[in-house]
Order: sequence, then structure tokens, then C-alpha cells
Amino acid sequence: MQKGRLTLPSEENFYEETKEIMERWGADAIRDSDGTTLDEKVKSLPVNIYSTYFVARGHNEFAEEHPEETQQLYLLSERTTATSRTVVISFMKGYLKEQIKPDYLHNEKKWWEVIDRTTGEVIATDQWGLDKETHQVTIQDATPFHEYTVSFLAYMIWDPTQMYNQITNDWKNIPHDIPFDVRQPNSNQYMKDYLEQWLIDHPDTDVVRFTTFYYHFTLFFNEERKEKFVDWFGYGGTVSVKALIDFEEAKGYRLRPEHFIDQGYYNSTFRNPSKEYLDYIDFIQEFVAKEAKALVDLVHAAGKEAIMFLGDNWIGTEPYGKYFERIGMDAVVGSVGGGATLRMISDIPHVKYTEGRFLPYFFPDTFYEGNNPVIEANENWLTARRAIMRKPLDRIGYGGYLSLAYQFPDFISYIEKIADEFRDIHSTIKEVTPHTALRVAVLNSWGALRSWQSHMVAHALRYKQIYSYQGILEALSGMPVDVTFISFDEVIESGVPEGIDVIINAGDAETSFSGGDYWLNDKLVTTIREWVYNGGGLIGIGEPTAVHHQGQFFQLSRVFGVDKELGFSLSTDKYFDQVTPEHFITKDKTEFDFGESMKNVYSLNESTEILEYSNEEIHLSSHEFGKGRGVYMAGLPFSIENTRLLYRSLYYAAHKEEEFEKWNVSNPYCEVHYYPEIKKAAIVNNSLEIQETEYFDGTGNKESIVLKPSELRWKEYHDEK
Amino acid sequence: MQKGRLTLPSEENFYEETKEIMERWGADAIRDSDGTTLDEKVKSLPVNIYSTYFVARGHNEFAEEHPEETQQLYLLSERTTATSRTVVISFMKGYLKEQIKPDYLHNEKKWWEVIDRTTGEVIATDQWGLDKETHQVTIQDATPFHEYTVSFLAYMIWDPTQMYNQITNDWKNIPHDIPFDVRQPNSNQYMKDYLEQWLIDHPDTDVVRFTTFYYHFTLFFNEERKEKFVDWFGYGGTVSVKALIDFEEAKGYRLRPEHFIDQGYYNSTFRNPSKEYLDYIDFIQEFVAKEAKALVDLVHAAGKEAIMFLGDNWIGTEPYGKYFERIGMDAVVGSVGGGATLRMISDIPHVKYTEGRFLPYFFPDTFYEGNNPVIEANENWLTARRAIMRKPLDRIGYGGYLSLAYQFPDFISYIEKIADEFRDIHSTIKEVTPHTALRVAVLNSWGALRSWQSHMVAHALRYKQIYSYQGILEALSGMPVDVTFISFDEVIESGVPEGIDVIINAGDAETSFSGGDYWLNDKLVTTIREWVYNGGGLIGIGEPTAVHHQGQFFQLSRVFGVDKELGFSLSTDKYFDQVTPEHFITKDKTEFDFGESMKNVYSLNESTEILEYSNEEIHLSSHEFGKGRGVYMAGLPFSIENTRLLYRSLYYAAHKEEEFEKWNVSNPYCEVHYYPEIKKAAIVNNSLEIQETEYFDGTGNKESIVLKPSELRWKEYHDEK
Repeated sequence: MQKGRLTLPSEENFYEETKEIMERWGADAIRDSDGTTLDEKVKSLPVNIYSTYFVARGHNEFAEEHPEETQQLYLLSERTTATSRTVVISFMKGYLKEQIKPDYLHNEKKWWEVIDRTTGEVIATDQWGLDKETHQVTIQDATPFHEYTVSFLAYMIWDPTQMYNQITNDWKNIPHDIPFDVRQPNSNQYMKDYLEQWLIDHPDTDVVRFTTFYYHFTLFFNEERKEKFVDWFGYGGTVSVKALIDFEEAKGYRLRPEHFIDQGYYNSTFRNPSKEYLDYIDFIQEFVAKEAKALVDLVHAAGKEAIMFLGDNWIGTEPYGKYFERIGMDAVVGSVGGGATLRMISDIPHVKYTEGRFLPYFFPDTFYEGNNPVIEANENWLTARRAIMRKPLDRIGYGGYLSLAYQFPDFISYIEKIADEFRDIHSTIKEVTPHTALRVAVLNSWGALRSWQSHMVAHALRYKQIYSYQGILEALSGMPVDVTFISFDEVIESGVPEGIDVIINAGDAETSFSGGDYWLNDKLVTTIREWVYNGGGLIGIGEPTAVHHQGQFFQLSRVFGVDKELGFSLSTDKYFDQVTPEHFITKDKTEFDFGESMKNVYSLNESTEILEYSNEEIHLSSHEFGKGRGVYMAGLPFSIENTRLLYRSLYYAAHKEEEFEKWNVSNPYCEVHYYPEIKKAAIVNNSLEIQETEYFDGTGNKESIVLKPSELRWKEYHDEK
Repeated sequence: MQKGRLTLPSEENFYEETKEIMERWGADAIRDSDGTTLDEKVKSLPVNIYSTYFVARGHNEFAEEHPEETQQLYLLSERTTATSRTVVISFMKGYLKEQIKPDYLHNEKKWWEVIDRTTGEVIATDQWGLDKETHQVTIQDATPFHEYTVSFLAYMIWDPTQMYNQITNDWKNIPHDIPFDVRQPNSNQYMKDYLEQWLIDHPDTDVVRFTTFYYHFTLFFNEERKEKFVDWFGYGGTVSVKALIDFEEAKGYRLRPEHFIDQGYYNSTFRNPSKEYLDYIDFIQEFVAKEAKALVDLVHAAGKEAIMFLGDNWIGTEPYGKYFERIGMDAVVGSVGGGATLRMISDIPHVKYTEGRFLPYFFPDTFYEGNNPVIEANENWLTARRAIMRKPLDRIGYGGYLSLAYQFPDFISYIEKIADEFRDIHSTIKEVTPHTALRVAVLNSWGALRSWQSHMVAHALRYKQIYSYQGILEALSGMPVDVTFISFDEVIESGVPEGIDVIINAGDAETSFSGGDYWLNDKLVTTIREWVYNGGGLIGIGEPTAVHHQGQFFQLSRVFGVDKELGFSLSTDKYFDQVTPEHFITKDKTEFDFGESMKNVYSLNESTEILEYSNEEIHLSSHEFGKGRGVYMAGLPFSIENTRLLYRSLYYAAHKEEEFEKWNVSNPYCEVHYYPEIKKAAIVNNSLEIQETEYFDGTGNKESIVLKPSELRWKEYHDEK
């Protein structure tokens, strides 16, 4: 049996057990974690040693000498109602002073903004004054009962990840790591010098695991030491006076505080990005890539590998961005919450390998007496395996306290099995292109930059407003389809890419994922309409193509055959409520789960095939448009049933129903992955129960098979003749 | 026992029974109906005779001689996607040719419009042509995959009410009544001449019951003879080439077809009205009032009374409009669906009396063997009686076939009881001002013009999108509060009227009832904010004050303490979900029914009192703002429980909780109405069960009482001293 491709966490005084597990799991690499140190003896094992490395924090002796090089961010005060002509705004209210310190080094009249939020107007700088003692701005000649805000520049004096860990785990007496800024001269030099020395001091390290580079995603806490704001994609922490000056030089215009504050939304990824924000992202990415490359080059010069953790200080390094390749990373490692997050890692281009850190984390929240961690591991593995079958990671790994996991022998055995299964899959299909039934494009404002990252607030966390959309990517992650991510701007510029069978547009109205005002662009709507008319498939979920304009809300309502009633057309009778009883899309379904669902969607005319109708509204429908088809869904939270529903919808939208019974199964709890180059098919049971299914191969044969819980069964096909 | 104040329908060959019922019910008036004729002997009874009179239809011999004077309307073709440079639009598709005939008498290039609905641009008239044989418009040089519509002028060749009755009842061999237009010279003269002669020919008629005057609310049918569009407030049927020319002369500018078509919404009352539409309403109302007065003058000259039915051809006569008084109507009669529709009639100013036609209608859908019509009558009476206690009608009446009702002796007895109770109430409280605990203003785009008419599509019909708001007016209709209706424009011009305790703003975002873009007006928002800050109460229901602007959706979110998450601020943590366990507003409640409810409403900070929280969102809350308060509700469908909930909310918003136990009861199924001038209180049981309740009079006394089902009990108070 093949070994390797697995990274193990270890700790001090745990050598024998580490060695045992290393052998059983076939680990070929061992890592330290936040809060653990490797035993010296471990370093002598026949494995690679991964060492966690922090670039921009953990050096307070340096940071305190250069307070002017502390990382910065723009923050918005509370909205304050004027009850007279004078308004006093305590702009630090709600912020954690351990983390946030107003920037009183630079001229506030130049770098801050006071805004009348009732009108949106900027208040003249001579109309307000700053009191640095009380952290208050006082506005004169205000308009009573208008609302005012202060956009202020601050220093971030506590690294957000350390802050999170320290507060969450109640660590005592640990100094707050002050993040310093690579854009500043001393910090820049310090980071390089320190790494150079570190590389010399760590001869045992084979792989430097950067966590990550320079800028943390936006994360700040409130006065009660609880999270106040988190945006996994946020560029909030990259700003500084120097960055603003450099930006003006690079792009030829000056940014306002409001370009960061964005009405208090801080350029959430759910907002259609402004041109200025896109310019700023580009500016930061180019800069971060250049600086990251400098460190990676040092690692390489020392004969080691450089691997990057996808998270924490990852801002500017986005692996699907246009500058990532320049960094020259050897690998990326990320946390696997399911299939979509796995694909987010395994699809990353321009690296030699990718690694997924699997769940559960070896922490006491899962590893406690009476709990069976195998269950979580099994569920995590089943969702991840679907994605692996399409695009495998090159390595898997775990994190946390190995000594804790060791107390659960069933768990140790189970991971041994998973590790073998992973290596078996990897060795079989790596470098092999799987059979692709359909080519699917997810269309939103972000396109490829946010591949496998749509509808995400904080990494893998559930929010009521997103789970009904996240099921789409999770379902797609393990389907025998190709998935690409395209942006509205690309479609406007160059049309729909060649070869796409189905486009998916999904999200709440006005969000970047649905598109909002983009749908006022006549080039966009005509391009998509024409493309569907000539045979394309369009699947809309939630409020697709939605912006109220010229008598309709869904701008492609004539493609979908449905629109959403906003109250303006109640006078128009809506007669269509008859469900098409037999339909390709709903063949496996009797009940539906649309998650948060969508209200008041109705059919425009009798040509819409209504597939689900309840509560006086449509939640699932299809419609012919020329040679193409539109399919509407009210929501798609992840489940095996909804995965099947989407799978059927894709075939239907693409007009390829007759190909559905090729390399497929009748039972939605199973899936088939076929690899033509090696003439092998994998039939998988994605459930924890025994499943019986019809299995259709690609040659027209059908057979009944029974799969054990979680089973993966290979079928080999030999050359005919 | 007092008699009178009741109108009875009758029919031929039913004299003796009519006489019997007349005496038992105390009727003092008898009317004919559509499809019935009064027996000659009935006319000799000691009652007034009401005769139904149609002004603008029922004279096809005249109408056919003057086809150019047929009533008109603007209609929109189906939205047609261009798939090449040439687009053919069959603009009559979807319309009932029995009702609609394109206007080929006037120049289509002058009066029609072809619009590119993708851009909103009007297509040059030389780019399209009309084929009058096929009813098609062909557009040349179209942009492929844009969508196009034709706005065309048509004649309405079948009166909508007659069409509805004829199709619904499957009447055979009855010619279609062609509606003719009082704005046209021959029609105008004909209407007057005919009425003059008719008055001479009907000496037995005491009261002419106009049904109604000139223009029907917008109602057209589709090709399958089913309703296609209905708007009880729609001015669609008032338009004509002559009206457009007259309008230009009167108002100094020309209207476009689009001012009527309104993107296909036809100026639904749910739309914020455009300036042009408001001008047009004014123009029509002034004209209709002038012409209606001419007919009423003829009736008066003949020594008869003129009464108007509130419905059907009522457009332009709106009783709360500024020209209604000029007509000189003696009375208005309308259909009573519940308390709100009763108040819509009983609050009408400038008439000598009002009459409500009660339910059930004497039709076979209720009066069939095995059914007990007393139940419907009792329910209708209980909802209506609440409103009568605040503002009584002067008369009640019934409609349909008396011979049918006569077969249900329990029903005849029950109405006898209702009639006596009505007269008892009327004689006791007519002209007496009831005690008013609070003054409530309903704030929307329409104000007083649509008093008691908000959120209505077709008279008293239920729609999924409106019932959660209609409960507000229904609840208010019988509460011991004063209700006025104010418009945004009034508040912007002159502030909140004196004496108002609570303002209610309710509706879905962007509708005229919520207000949409009005909430961008800084005069409006500051006026309301300041008013609440100084002690006013604001109740918002659904999506109040909602328009996305400068970082918030509810523009008065700081008054309500809540806003609605649109997806842009998901990154901001929302911690507040703790329900205030003991609160004045929720004192009687354990369960809630918010109807269609509202999603994703959250608290802005800890100062909001959350009163209901489920499904990760708030549906009921209150918040202090200065000396005033804001209350938020997700919806308020009508029920006795919700009436109580609103009642408590009003007291709370007005900061008058300490007055709640005056002239009130502890049991939500009961209500108290006090009349200080006569020192009488009425305690009513609004339910069909026995109710026990604490009763609080206005002097601090409390007693327990038990009320029989539906009971109304008077209490007399004598002068103290």
C-alpha cells in the first residue's frame, strides 16, 4: 500500500505515538501549530518538517519602535442623529480599544471624512473639529435631524487572528501582536532580514508554511471583545496613508475614505464592486505579489519549499487573481469544510501541489468523552470526496492536538482508512481528466477571482441569508461537470465563453452575485438572451437578473418565463398554477427544500412549465426560449436531494436529457465518475447507509448494484474489439 | 320600536312576502336590482322607491350611431423579443375582441407609442408600421434581443360590469352594452336628454340610484373571457383623444401614452403616482364632478333624491377627492365587506346620508339547501358593527333575490334582529362624538384621497400580497381612535398635522403605501424624525420608510431601532435576539400571526426592545427615540388578536399606556365605546362565543362582566355631584 501525501500535527513529548500514527496513516510530513512545538526527536523521523511562519506580526520589539508603521484601516462611526445645530460624535464608540487606535499622526482634515448620511454630502472640514482626548468630532451648523457619520483612519494595534485566538481561548499574559506594514520602509526591510536569519536558524525545516503574508482579511471586535465585523475577502486592513499616496501615483487619481467605508458596508463582497475598489484590489494584489515573491525567493534560495495558508493574512494573494502566479508559491494549503472549499483549494493554478486540512480539528470541542469524532470525520470526508473525484488535492492533513485524537482509537483507525482511500483515488486519477457531461459557468460580478467563493461572508460559516445559495457550489463541486466562474464585465466585453452549456446566476437582488444594476446593461442582457435563444441553458436561483426596470424585475423574465411580483402588477391576473406532473427535472423528487426560498414568483404565461407551486407562488419552473431553456429555482441549500435536482436541471437546461443515463446512477445518493483515459469508473455511495441503484455506463449497459455505506467502487473497462 | 333606515330588494310577483318582510325588518325603501323589476303593487307600499340608473351604457341604438364616441383606453401589447432586425408585434394578442377594438380612427403615429423596453427609448414613428387587417405593428431596424412593446389606443366596446355579469352568469342573447363618453358632444347631450325624459317617465321613483356615472374602473378581459386586469382605482377607461387634447389645454402640457401605460402597471394605486398622473386625476375629477352635477341637478329639479353607488363607474367621483362636494349628491351607497369598507362609506363627507349594502347577497352561492346564511350574516355584522360604533352609516340594505332569502326563515329572523340593533345604535349615537383615546394618521403617497382604501386592488378581494396590511385598516375601523389619512406631500409641505398621536407607515418597499423614493426627501425624513423625537409615535409595518440609501434600508431605522438586512451588511455581527419578556405591547399575546411576514429584520443595537424573534429575525419590536417611540411589525393580517396587538402598540407608541385601562376591557374579544355627550358606554362582544371580561370605565372603576355571543350592552352614566 502506497504511503505519503499526509501531514500530521505533532507536539512535545509525544514522539512514540507520533511515530505510530505516522506509520499507520502513512504521513510524510509533520507540522507544528499555533501553540505547539515539535519534539526534537520528531524532526529526525523520515518526514518533511513544516514550520508555521508569521510575516507581519510577532515582533513587538520592532513594531513598538515604529508605531507609524502599524497597519491601518478606515472605520465608520455610529450614525448620529443631529437634534440641534451641533452634533458630537464619539467615533470610537463600539470599537475595541485594545485593537483600534485612531490615527492622530496624520492630518484628519486631509484623511478623514464627515458625511451627512441623509443627503450623502461631505461636510466641509471647517465645519467640524476633532478632540483627540475624548475621541470626539463636533460638527457645527448641522441640519437638525439629519444623520451624520465620521469616517476615520485608525491603527490596528492587535493582529486579528491572535486577538481571536487569545480572546476565544482566554489566553492570559500574552502580549498583543502588533501588525506592521510591508509597505513601510523599516517593516519591509525587517521582514526580509528576519526571514533570512530564520531560514539559517531552522535547518530542519523543509517547508515554510506562511500564515500568510501581509494583510489580514477585515476583522474587528467591539467593546465587549466580541466580533463586530468580519469579511473574509475584505481589503480594509491594507490601507494606509502611504498606500493612498502610492495608489494616486499608480492609478492617477485619489481615493476618498468613502471608497473604503462604502456607506458602512466596507466593500462587502456582496456589493457590486465600484471601479475604484476594483482598481484598489488590483493595486494591492500587484504589490502583495511582488513583496511575497521576495520572501518566497529567500525560501527557495535556502533550499526549502514555500507553502501558503489560504486564509488569515491572505489578502492580496488571491490564488485566482492575476498576480498570484508571480509569487512563485510551491503550494497552497487550506481548510476543507466541504466540497466547495476543497475545490477552492484543489483548482488553484500555478502551484506544484495543494493540500487540504480536514475536519475535525483535534480540539476538545469534538474530542471529548462520549462523543464519536468518526461521525464528523465521515461526513466531512463524504462531502470532500465528491470534490476530490473531480479534482483531487495532492495532500491531506489535520490540525490540533494529536495527543487528544490519540485517545480515540476508532478515530485513528478511521483516518487510516481515509488516508488509504485518498491515496488510492489520488494515484488513480491524478493527471487524468474526468469525463465531463456539461460545462457550467457561474455568472456574477466577480467571475474567476472569486472561484468557488460566492455567497461567502466568513470562511465556511453559515448565515441565514446565504445557505440557500451555497448549496449550488457545494452541489457542483462533486458533479461530473466542468465549472468556471465568469463575470458580467467579461460577458459584456467578449460574450459568453465558447463551449458553455449552462450559465447559473444566483443570489438576492442587488447583490454582486445576482448582479443588480449590471442587468440594466443592454449588452449584457442581449448577449445572454441571444445565447440562450441559440441553445444555451440559463439557471436562475433566488432573484436572478433582478433589477426593477421598464416593467419587470427579472430582466431575463422572458427567458425564465417567471418574474417576481413587487406589488405593482397585482392588478394583472395570474392564472398559472398548474404543476407539470411528469418532468425530467422532478423525476426523482416528491418533496422540496428551497431553504429561505423566494416569495411572489409567478409565471408570465402558459408556456412556463411549473414544477413546484405552493403558498400561491412558484419555486421551481422551466421555460423554453428559442432553442434554449431557462430554469428557475427559489433556492438551493445543500443536500443530496438538491444536488440531484440541480444535476437534472443542468441536463434539462442544456437540452441533453437523453445523455442523462450515461455514466450515471438512478439513486440520488450515489454518483459516478468516469475517467476515459484510464477507462475506469468510480461509483460512490455518498451516504452513511447501504444504497441500491441502477448503474448506467457510457455504452448503454445498465446493471443493479448495491453499495455499502460510503463505499467507492471502481469499475474497469477494457478496450473493446 | 323604531322603524326605517333599511332598503329591501324586491322583484315581480312577490308582493305579499315583500310586504311581510318590509314590516318585520322595518324597511322604508325598496329597490330593484340588475335583472329584477319591481312589482307594480310594491310601488304603492309606504316606502321610498329606489331605481337603479345607468348613465353611460344600455343605449346601443345611440352608441352604434356614434362609434367615435365610444369610451377608450390605452393598452400595452405583449413584450416581444427581437430575434432579428425586424419585429412583428400582434398587439391584440391576449385581449378580448368582444371588449377591445383598436382605435383606427385616429392617427396611430400621433397617439400610439412603440417602446424599446430594454432601454426605455421610444422608437421613431418612421421605424414602424401598422397593419390594420392583422392588428400587427412591424418594427424595422430593431436591435436584436431587445424587447419591444406597442402602446395602443383602443375603444372599449363592452361595458365591463355588464361583461362581468354576462360572462359570469352565462347570460345568453343579451346585446353587449357599448359605453359612450360624456366628454363627447352627442353623448353628453344624449345623457341629459334621456335622464330628463326618464324622470318624467318614472313618477314612482323617489330616489335615483346612479350606478354610477361616466367611467368604469379599469377592467379588461383576456381572450378566454377571463379577467386580465382589474384596478378598482384605475383611470384607464377615462382616456380619449379628446381628453388628451382637453388635458393639454387645461394643464399646459401633453401627456404621452406611457403616462397611462406606466411600464404595464397602468398607474396601479400601488405605484407612487407621477406628477402627470396626479394632474390627470385632478383633470378628470373636476370634469366628472361638473358633469355629474348636471345630472344630479336634473334629479333634484324633478323632486327626487340622487344617490350614488360607490363602485363600477365611480372613477372621477372619489368621495374624498376635492371636487366631490360640487356634485351635490344626496347620499352614497356602497358594499360593506367589513369594518374598513364600512368606514370608507360612513366617513364620506358632503352627503346627507350614507347607506351600506350588507352581506350576504341573496344569491344561490349562499342561499342553498343545507347552508346556514345566518353564519355569514353574523360574521359580517360583527366586523361592520365595530365600525358602526365609531361612525355609523345612516341606512343599511340588502341586495339580490328576496324570494330566495325568504326560504330561510332563521335568516329572516336574524336580519330582523340586526335591523333593530342597527336602528338602536344609530338613534343612540348618531351626531354624537365618541370618546377618542388616540389620534392616528395613516401616512402614504395618497393621503386623504384614498381614505380607508390603502392596499386594495379590487374591492374587498383578498390577495396574498395585501392581506398582511389590510388588517391595519380593518383593526382601526372599530377602535376608539380617530383615524386620518395623510400624504407625504402634505407632510413635506406643512409638517405633521396638529394633535396626531401616532403615525402608521405600512407596506412593501417601493409601493405607494410604504413610499419608496419619497423617503429620499430630507424634508420628509427630518420632519418625521423630529416629530417622533419630540414625543410622537411611529408604527412601521412590513417595509416602512424603505428605500436603500446611504447605508440603510429603512430610512427611519434609528427611530424603529431595526433595519432589514439586504445582504450588504452580513459582515456586521448582529447579536440582538433576546426577547423582552414582559412588555405592555405583548401583554395579551402568546402567539403571533404576521401573515406574509417580513424577512431579515434585525436590531441595530441593544436599545431596541425585541418583542418577537424567530427564524433568526425580528417581527415585532419597539424603540425609544427621544421622547417618542417607534414600533415595528412584520405584518398585521386582520384578527381579533391582531386588533388588540395594534391597539396596545398605538397606546405604547403614543406613550399613553397609563390610559389604557380607561373605557376598555381586559378581554381582547370585547371592546368598549364611550359617548361622553350622552354619558353612555357600549360594551360589545365581537365574537360568536360567550366572553367574560374585566371592564374599566373612565373613572377608575373596574367590574367583571359576562357578555353573550355578539352581545352589545349599554351602560349609562349619570352626572356625578
